Amino acid sequence: MLPDFQRDRIDVVLVSPRNPLNIGAVARAMANFGYSHLTVVAPYAPHWREARSAVGAPDLLQNAKATECLAEAVAACTFVAGTGTLTYRKPEQPVVSLPDLGPIVAQHLDRGGRIALVFGPEKHGLTRDDLSFCNVLIEIPTDPHQPSMNLGQAVAVCLYELARMIPPRVDQTPSIVSEYGSIPRSPIQAGNINSPAPSGALDLLAGLIESTMTAAGYSPRAMQSANRHDLRVLLRRLAPSALDTRRMLGFFRRIVSRLNR
Amino acid sequence: MLPDFQRDRIDVVLVSPRNPLNIGAVARAMANFGYSHLTVVAPYAPHWREARSAVGAPDLLQNAKATECLAEAVAACTFVAGTGTLTYRKPEQPVVSLPDLGPIVAQHLDRGGRIALVFGPEKHGLTRDDLSFCNVLIEIPTDPHQPSMNLGQAVAVCLYELARMIPPRVDQTPSIVSEYGSIPRSPIQAGNINSPAPSGALDLLAGLIESTMTAAGYSPRAMQSANRHDLRVLLRRLAPSALDTRRMLGFFRRIVSRLNR
Repeated sequence: MLPDFQRDRIDVVLVSPRNPLNIGAVARAMANFGYSHLTVVAPYAPHWREARSAVGAPDLLQNAKATECLAEAVAACTFVAGTGTLTYRKPEQPVVSLPDLGPIVAQHLDRGGRIALVFGPEKHGLTRDDLSFCNVLIEIPTDPHQPSMNLGQAVAVCLYELARMIPPRVDQTPSIVSEYGSIPRSPIQAGNINSPAPSGALDLLAGLIESTMTAAGYSPRAMQSANRHDLRVLLRRLAPSALDTRRMLGFFRRIVSRLNR
Repeated sequence: MLPDFQRDRIDVVLVSPRNPLNIGAVARAMANFGYSHLTVVAPYAPHWREARSAVGAPDLLQNAKATECLAEAVAACTFVAGTGTLTYRKPEQPVVSLPDLGPIVAQHLDRGGRIALVFGPEKHGLTRDDLSFCNVLIEIPTDPHQPSMNLGQAVAVCLYELARMIPPRVDQTPSIVSEYGSIPRSPIQAGNINSPAPSGALDLLAGLIESTMTAAGYSPRAMQSANRHDLRVLLRRLAPSALDTRRMLGFFRRIVSRLNR
């Protein structure tokens, strides 16, 4: 996620939204991703009042600006990105696929710029005239059969893309990544749910499971060697933690003792 | 965007959604990103009818499934990802930040798996019990002051993340081989050593292990519910293959029948 001082330089601009519920949904998505500057261009007055007075409306809706035209809304911005689909238009602006937006925004923020993300009305989106105020047109990679997104969802997806720019919090990385093998995890830490069992513990478990197989008549003599091999391979593949392994040892000890009664 | 045949193996699962408008919003986000498999767990009947009969409801809503419980909804899935925030919980599952989800999903699709993305009710999200059916918990990188997203927006953001990833090329055998050492892949072939067990098979195995615990006197009555929960979580973490699971089923069947003699 971008730091506060950078998010503070990003405006979300809605051009003539029709549905007050959509305005509320946009405000909620902004609050979720930590943005606070909303501008609404030429709102329909009754809907605008309704949206701002809705129960549970985020603070940022109280502080939202209304302007008469898009030019006024983006006047202070150094980089204006319109959103829309390419299905029905041939844009005059460079088209940026949303996944490529991050570095462009980062570059502008680094240079001290102010950025606007502009969203059109629910029905037809931004007009050619609206787009003429935009430096680029952002294309969200939707399905060509159903390209037009709900307004609140489109804003959520764009702000999520900006939240993506900075890697996940450092203090959560080890336990996540270790599951998928790309970062070494600390094997010593006892009791950690992810602390892996040492090979010797797996061998102990394998021996006990083999005893259980024998006691239960599961593994005929001819198969014992193959089963022992497969079990060793299986336990390495499953990679149970030290704690998992202790539990399984207790469980199979109990089974063997019952079977051998 | 993923190719059709891969998107076809991704289910969106809503657990007890309360608001019919949210169900419609989820369906729209799915249509935007080209997904068609929606399952709703324990829907409130009047709202479910209302959502499905809404004007302009996408086709996929007509074909949506309703199930009584989450176990049933994800029974055919080999990888189940719950969604939520970490604000009020300490999850037992590995946490994956949404921007890291793509490669994990790609890997499972390459192995011929079926994936569920699970979303909880609007108010409180997925419960600890719901999460025990999940292999991982996906964290959307939201602002800590306002972490809880609107349901339709959360679904849109997750599906956008999948739309972001470059589809794995079908002919890319080498990258798969490097993932799994020297084992050649053939993802569809049943019984492949890497073909993951579906959730329903894990439930079957868990039930049988529980019977074994009871038969062996390992699990006192007071502990049964806790052990059932822990076992569900453990099996998801170990992620045994379909073949592993069949073997373990055979093994525990034998143990139970001996113990019960």
